Amino acid sequence: MESTEPTEPISLFDALTSFDALWSPRIVTTVNDYDVRVAKVEGEHLWHTHDHTDEFFLVIEGELHISLREPSGERTVVLPQGSVFTVPRGTEHKPYAPARAAILVLEPTGTLTVGDRHDEIPDHVDATTGHALA
Amino acid sequence: MESTEPTEPISLFDALTSFDALWSPRIVTTVNDYDVRVAKVEGEHLWHTHDHTDEFFLVIEGELHISLREPSGERTVVLPQGSVFTVPRGTEHKPYAPARAAILVLEPTGTLTVGDRHDEIPDHVDATTGHALA
Repeated sequence: MESTEPTEPISLFDALTSFDALWSPRIVTTVNDYDVRVAKVEGEHLWHTHDHTDEFFLVIEGELHISLREPSGERTVVLPQGSVFTVPRGTEHKPYAPARAAILVLEPTGTLTVGDRHDEIPDHVDATTGHALA
Repeated sequence: MESTEPTEPISLFDALTSFDALWSPRIVTTVNDYDVRVAKVEGEHLWHTHDHTDEFFLVIEGELHISLREPSGERTVVLPQGSVFTVPRGTEHKPYAPARAAILVLEPTGTLTVGDRHDEIPDHVDATTGHALA
């Protein structure tokens, strides 16, 4: 569905103050058939895999760790504020934030936060394709 | 071409200190068939149109103005640091930075900085599909 309404810029800081839920992304804008989402995060997400898409992370505030199960073994990458990383499609991964952080994620519209294959979903993780901004 | 080399996170701040050219984006990572590019900008870009793709902007440092020629007329949106905006495909637009700024742009790999239709390209604008990071 395309909108013909002129749109305005969105402040990521304003977007982040509009909700409190952790691991529950909000869609701030779309680019073709991709969503740009922001999320507040803290603690562990879960091991999951997107079989058909890469997933892009940008750390807006705080620090994000992403554990990766690659053919060569398991490792964890650390993203300080202002860093970016792309998890390749098919790579099992688990995000983790040692303290409250905020991230921007880019992925195709409809992509589930828990991927196509995943561990049991803990109560504190929202299995969603992203929520509209309030 | 897919790489099987494990990749590391990239600091956008480090990426931005690795080059000086204005309006000359560097590709920091790819997401499926999209590029994530960063650019230093100052002064005027040029009126141009991407006929087949939206273009996403995020302001990392400074302030970016984007003038837009929409069916309802011409307007300029202002993006302070930390703001995002998507220029819809087919919309003629001209970015402008009143002072030195840094932006992140997302668009399909191969997208030209000057679009499919554009004004005469001034000397200070690099017509490119993006450069590799040094």
